[in-house]
Amino acid sequence: MKALVLESYNNLVYKDVPKPDFKNNEVLVQVKACGICGSDVHGMDGSTGRRNPPLIMGHEASGLIVEVGNEVQSFAKGDRVTFDSTIYALNDWYTLRGKYNLSDNRKVLGVSPKEYRQHGAFAEYVVVPEHILYRLPDSVSFEQAAMVEPVAVATHAIDLTPISLRDTVLVVGTGMIGLFLIQVLKLSNAGKIIAVDLDDKKLELAKKFGADHTFNSKTEDIQESILALTHNRGADVVFEAVGISATVKLAIENVRKGGVVTLVGNLAQQVDFPLQAVVTREIRLQGSCAIAGEYAKVLEMMEKGLIDVDSLLSAKVPLSEGASWFKRLYDKEPGLNKVVLQP
Amino acid sequence: MKALVLESYNNLVYKDVPKPDFKNNEVLVQVKACGICGSDVHGMDGSTGRRNPPLIMGHEASGLIVEVGNEVQSFAKGDRVTFDSTIYALNDWYTLRGKYNLSDNRKVLGVSPKEYRQHGAFAEYVVVPEHILYRLPDSVSFEQAAMVEPVAVATHAIDLTPISLRDTVLVVGTGMIGLFLIQVLKLSNAGKIIAVDLDDKKLELAKKFGADHTFNSKTEDIQESILALTHNRGADVVFEAVGISATVKLAIENVRKGGVVTLVGNLAQQVDFPLQAVVTREIRLQGSCAIAGEYAKVLEMMEKGLIDVDSLLSAKVPLSEGASWFKRLYDKEPGLNKVVLQP
Amino acid sequence: MKALVLESYNNLVYKDVPKPDFKNNEVLVQVKACGICGSDVHGMDGSTGRRNPPLIMGHEASGLIVEVGNEVQSFAKGDRVTFDSTIYALNDWYTLRGKYNLSDNRKVLGVSPKEYRQHGAFAEYVVVPEHILYRLPDSVSFEQAAMVEPVAVATHAIDLTPISLRDTVLVVGTGMIGLFLIQVLKLSNAGKIIAVDLDDKKLELAKKFGADHTFNSKTEDIQESILALTHNRGADVVFEAVGISATVKLAIENVRKGGVVTLVGNLAQQVDFPLQAVVTREIRLQGSCAIAGEYAKVLEMMEKGLIDVDSLLSAKVPLSEGASWFKRLYDKEPGLNKVVLQP
Amino acid sequence: MKALVLESYNNLVYKDVPKPDFKNNEVLVQVKACGICGSDVHGMDGSTGRRNPPLIMGHEASGLIVEVGNEVQSFAKGDRVTFDSTIYALNDWYTLRGKYNLSDNRKVLGVSPKEYRQHGAFAEYVVVPEHILYRLPDSVSFEQAAMVEPVAVATHAIDLTPISLRDTVLVVGTGMIGLFLIQVLKLSNAGKIIAVDLDDKKLELAKKFGADHTFNSKTEDIQESILALTHNRGADVVFEAVGISATVKLAIENVRKGGVVTLVGNLAQQVDFPLQAVVTREIRLQGSCAIAGEYAKVLEMMEKGLIDVDSLLSAKVPLSEGASWFKRLYDKEPGLNKVVLQP
Ligand SMILES: NC(=O)c1ccc[n+]([C@@H]2O[C@H](COP(=O)([O-])OP(=O)(O)OC[C@H]3O[C@@H](n4cnc5c(N)ncnc54)[C@H](OP(=O)(O)O)[C@@H]3O)[C@@H](O)[C@H]2O)c1
Ligand SMILES: NC(=O)c1ccc[n+]([C@@H]2O[C@H](COP(=O)([O-])OP(=O)(O)OC[C@H]3O[C@@H](n4cnc5c(N)ncnc54)[C@H](OP(=O)(O)O)[C@@H]3O)[C@@H](O)[C@H]2O)c1
Ligand SMILES: NC(=O)c1ccc[n+]([C@@H]2O[C@H](COP(=O)([O-])OP(=O)(O)OC[C@H]3O[C@@H](n4cnc5c(N)ncnc54)[C@H](OP(=O)(O)O)[C@@H]3O)[C@@H](O)[C@H]2O)c1
Ligand SMILES: NC(=O)c1ccc[n+]([C@@H]2O[C@H](COP(=O)([O-])OP(=O)(O)OC[C@H]3O[C@@H](n4cnc5c(N)ncnc54)[C@H](OP(=O)(O)O)[C@@H]3O)[C@@H](O)[C@H]2O)c1
Ligand SMILES: [Zn+2]
Ligand SMILES: [Zn+2]
Ligand SMILES: [Zn+2]
Ligand SMILES: [Zn+2]
Repeated sequence: MKALVLESYNNLVYKDVPKPDFKNNEVLVQVKACGICGSDVHGMDGSTGRRNPPLIMGHEASGLIVEVGNEVQSFAKGDRVTFDSTIYALNDWYTLRGKYNLSDNRKVLGVSPKEYRQHGAFAEYVVVPEHILYRLPDSVSFEQAAMVEPVAVATHAIDLTPISLRDTVLVVGTGMIGLFLIQVLKLSNAGKIIAVDLDDKKLELAKKFGADHTFNSKTEDIQESILALTHNRGADVVFEAVGISATVKLAIENVRKGGVVTLVGNLAQQVDFPLQAVVTREIRLQGSCAIAGEYAKVLEMMEKGLIDVDSLLSAKVPLSEGASWFKRLYDKEPGLNKVVLQP
Repeated sequence: MKALVLESYNNLVYKDVPKPDFKNNEVLVQVKACGICGSDVHGMDGSTGRRNPPLIMGHEASGLIVEVGNEVQSFAKGDRVTFDSTIYALNDWYTLRGKYNLSDNRKVLGVSPKEYRQHGAFAEYVVVPEHILYRLPDSVSFEQAAMVEPVAVATHAIDLTPISLRDTVLVVGTGMIGLFLIQVLKLSNAGKIIAVDLDDKKLELAKKFGADHTFNSKTEDIQESILALTHNRGADVVFEAVGISATVKLAIENVRKGGVVTLVGNLAQQVDFPLQAVVTREIRLQGSCAIAGEYAKVLEMMEKGLIDVDSLLSAKVPLSEGASWFKRLYDKEPGLNKVVLQP
Repeated sequence: MKALVLESYNNLVYKDVPKPDFKNNEVLVQVKACGICGSDVHGMDGSTGRRNPPLIMGHEASGLIVEVGNEVQSFAKGDRVTFDSTIYALNDWYTLRGKYNLSDNRKVLGVSPKEYRQHGAFAEYVVVPEHILYRLPDSVSFEQAAMVEPVAVATHAIDLTPISLRDTVLVVGTGMIGLFLIQVLKLSNAGKIIAVDLDDKKLELAKKFGADHTFNSKTEDIQESILALTHNRGADVVFEAVGISATVKLAIENVRKGGVVTLVGNLAQQVDFPLQAVVTREIRLQGSCAIAGEYAKVLEMMEKGLIDVDSLLSAKVPLSEGASWFKRLYDKEPGLNKVVLQP
Repeated sequence: MKALVLESYNNLVYKDVPKPDFKNNEVLVQVKACGICGSDVHGMDGSTGRRNPPLIMGHEASGLIVEVGNEVQSFAKGDRVTFDSTIYALNDWYTLRGKYNLSDNRKVLGVSPKEYRQHGAFAEYVVVPEHILYRLPDSVSFEQAAMVEPVAVATHAIDLTPISLRDTVLVVGTGMIGLFLIQVLKLSNAGKIIAVDLDDKKLELAKKFGADHTFNSKTEDIQESILALTHNRGADVVFEAVGISATVKLAIENVRKGGVVTLVGNLAQQVDFPLQAVVTREIRLQGSCAIAGEYAKVLEMMEKGLIDVDSLLSAKVPLSEGASWFKRLYDKEPGLNKVVLQP
């Protein structure tokens, strides 16, 4: 089969590789669409240590089942599906507590850190175990399904966060994740939604997706504006979706006493942390990692037309052209959001 | 009346001052015992900005009611009492949500930041409003009652923290607060209790108060030892009771994926924070500030003899000798724990 | 002043009574609108024991402040206000835990059980303490404000109920409370909303207010329909808003294993309870009583136009005609919803 | 092999049956001890419909692994084990949310309702899948391990119940479950523990196991006594461990406003339920079903000697004598607690 292979750092080659084998509990999926994730882009130059060549990347995918292992029970040839980006064990201490996203020895598709190499979906076919599959509703296209993953990341962060009815929620960073946070927050208990970013174009999208107020932190005094919107208290809940010192600080400064800051962004390994403010204002911070079963509800929201992924889908292009699109993303071409590759 | 007055930074004078007036909803308490808090010691040199002279410090106190305002309903002359270290408003947004410790415009006894000056209990008499009073059980002495406050700080942190039955709990720092955390954890859902400090003497106290395992982080490899005690997962819950970068890091490194770190220590204004570890291990951090009504349950535990404060009470001495004892604490005399002054 | 007085059971008289006095912490409100509550209608014949004559009833009211006690701080003459239906103590064990709705010795306006008699707002003037007041947004009329109370009852029930994002929610009973539950659920985490009642007219209103599916339990097989809508599991969350054996049973039968049933309805003192189903299906039931601070968020939702109270406001009529409108409600005139009396 | 077979209702026969086969993911356990559960006793006369003959009952067991299927990974021949009473699917909606006790199509060992027949452990050998196995600590005997199940039932109920530090907890019914509830509550956040039963002998055991106060509801005015012990509020938390109208009523009457009643007992299919009290006192009720992973922590508590099961173990006798011991239990022989059969 054809695949887009990271042969060495920064070197993506579209070439023939052997079609993979599958086990009794697995299915073979003919990939129809696979999105390029920011982590793929940053990872291909070796900086994250999680994409050791040779590797077929790609974990935001959808396709058609073409073969099923003989223990597979609930899926059949011809099913239109997407699947979790993570392969996790079912009989695991964390999984059995509803937290498979933290399970031991889990593997992310299209990733190869030291411990394992799990080829992903930038290929004609990919193999996945039955228990991570999700059937696509008829009204959800393969390209849309390739964007379920980032919506599910946003949804998972919201699921982890105690939001009371009509709470004011601040979203720091309106990249892909921040914009999906806003869309999903519109369907939640949240009242007023405030968004902060450095880029006015993205803040316009934030408004379009439902933010009630947007601020550019480059040019505006955020704290005063937020106090004015919140009875002088600060936001009840903040989502940090960047992951650097400046934005973690902004998040903590703008949450009210006793409020919650959910940490999704993780660009920097280490950041400055205003400890005394966190302690004396009794703030709760909650890390949010990946997804723990949110695929089902994201697909339901998409089926109902409640999530707009199309506005963030910049290009659907053949897998064979993958290398050049990776480069455009690596070079941070302005306005280029999600790119979906089609094998 | 006599009082110990901070006349200028580092200058404590035992002298006559006018007996304070009280309002209709207040009582006049004849102080019988008042503990010297670490924050008083650090604060008297001006470094914290929260003890602007002139000031009568002292917020860990007990005494006898000698006068009551004419709206006071549930207390009377002769009642043996202790009181909250914080004077808070009843009709406040936070108070009405069960969080008076975060209420706006609250005042701490014996503290004088820029916004207010509230004289405290290093004096023969102190005035407090009725709603912050707690009656002493007969079996609790005035000196013991002067130590309710730090036990309540520990109890509040535990009340804020979701501990499941038999969770392994790690306490980082076994000073006054850490040692009370351990004592109260013994009465909680916690299973195994592990303590870490730099000082073997304090770790011996930790053992005495119920820690199952203690480690000196100066000399031992904590992480390996804790993994060995926790099915290779890490502690379910960690209390950080120091408040510097090294110990915050230690706390986060040793909690299991999905675990909780409660932040009580706050020595450093800002610390280094391992953001990626917090996000990808989905850790929750919870700031804990002061006390929100825990006095009642602390007094009940003391009445039942479940908390040993006596072992941490180093000296009960006349208020007139306060200045020299403040100096010994300021100079970090080894082995000197709580000092209680008696007017 | 003029007032509508329950002089003996079933005997309402519009007459002159003395204008009430107010204390230092109270205000005198000139009543502009006061809704007739179901509990007033049932109560006036003596059957509930909570309206012992003579009594001025009325607890769903709004008006203009015309006098303020000299300790009142945040309100002034001329303020347009509504107020809590309950007068509660601030220094109370429950209030300090965020539960003033359960506080000891609280009094409901316009109610007179054995323990107290608190005249209400079917009068030209009513006296209330400052701490239960809420300012009206300009865009909320007095008549609309008289309907804040039942919306707040619904909102309180929702606040008490853990609803995860996109949960399927069933509302049993679409009277006044059920219809407001549906409206507020539309602004919550809830996904699919299903409503059940005996009356097709009310079910039409339920649809209009946002129910996705409605069933008449007189004519349809509810359980099969709900299973079909919920992956064969049952509703994640149920609100019971009737309060009789048949509907409590229906609620428990139609919630999924591990789900939550919030009990708002309380017509019957005692009902039949399927204990084995509750235990072996591990169901949680949550009683919901009155309101604990939800006025503020209800007024904010009304200000934003998110709640339609007008469709449920059947009549605004002079207080002098109160007796005859009480009778029409007592006789269950079909289609008659909220009636607001204007002094 | 030999087994105790329920050949027809009330007819237990000790006889030869074929040794069972096992699958790749299963092990063959040589049973060393198996307790007789109340549900076995009530079930053998057909009244519950869950023991349709022919059936080998027995779900509270322990033994030695003698054969392992070839996919078994973490257990080996010779391992001393106990196992969950329930065989559940790993890839199930409930299991993946941490609730395998509610999973669809689960099977209880030694039970045969209409849907399935799962032979249990009143036999020389029993087959179970690997994922329900738990290794025995050396210090826990096979007989003790046969009592893990009821301790785990009690622990599960406590895990489901929000108990704040020092809450007063009332246990209604001090049979096997109630007595284990008390023992485990002693290791929890609970403060004062109060027990109620009809039988003074059992109340003595309750005292021995740590109840601070016991009341015989046949002879004492419970409500007044409990109010006196709880600042006139009622218990913060109640466990109902009988399951009839009288005790459900007692539980609800004696919990404080806003308190929690956990329902474990389920003798009666339907009970009377004081709806108005539940609604107006805003009580939460929580059904508790079986066990969701509590085996591990129960074994740890037993290993540490924190749970006394020996005092409740009335007899260890050969499996061949099972029928007569079943009869003695069926006839409610006074003082006869747990009986363990040894194949
Ligand atoms: N926890 C998880 O499971 C998970 C999963 C996926 C992604 N993530 C993380 O989530 C973060 C966001 O991902 P993404 O895909 O949305 O990335 P992205 O598209 O690059 O978005 C980041 C956004 O933050 C903005 N930003 C940067 N610095 C800022 C500042 N000082 N103040 C305000 N806004 C600022 C950026 O604006 P400019 O464009 O102007 O720079 C951009 O709009 C990343 O750290 C990623 O690693 C976490
Ligand atoms: N959040 C609140 O409401 C609240 C209330 C009261 C106090 N606090 C804070 O809580 C913290 C503890 O207070 P405290 O009264 O218990 O102070 P303390 O008696 O000085 O205790 C601090 C302890 O931490 C130990 N320690 C210092 N560095 C360490 C390290 N690197 N690793 C391990 N242990 C280390 C110290 O050991 P050595 O003695 O060897 O240095 C000492 O035993 C302080 O930050 C205080 O400000 C917070
Ligand atoms: N917990 C609290 O704080 C609180 C506060 C206010 C009210 N409540 C209680 O909440 C309940 C509802 O109040 P409300 O003002 O909404 O009363 P309501 O207007 O009389 O509404 C009750 C609704 O339930 C319907 N109903 C009656 N029997 C039914 C059945 N077997 N199946 C399905 N639907 C049925 C009624 O239909 P029909 O019209 O056809 O009979 C009616 O639409 C009452 O019990 C009230 O006491 C509680
Ligand atoms: N939810 C679950 O997962 C689960 C699991 C196991 C068992 N259970 C249930 O839990 C309940 C208790 O089980 P068990 O094994 O402990 O049964 P048990 O040994 O028969 O205990 C029941 C106890 O309740 C007492 N009692 C009966 N009526 C009472 C009354 N009116 N007031 C106070 N006490 C009363 C009994 O006293 P006398 O001996 O004097 O009658 C006996 O001590 C049963 O309903 C059982 O079905 C539930
Ligand atoms: Zn991704
Ligand atoms: Zn202090
Ligand atoms: Zn009402
Ligand atoms: Zn059993």
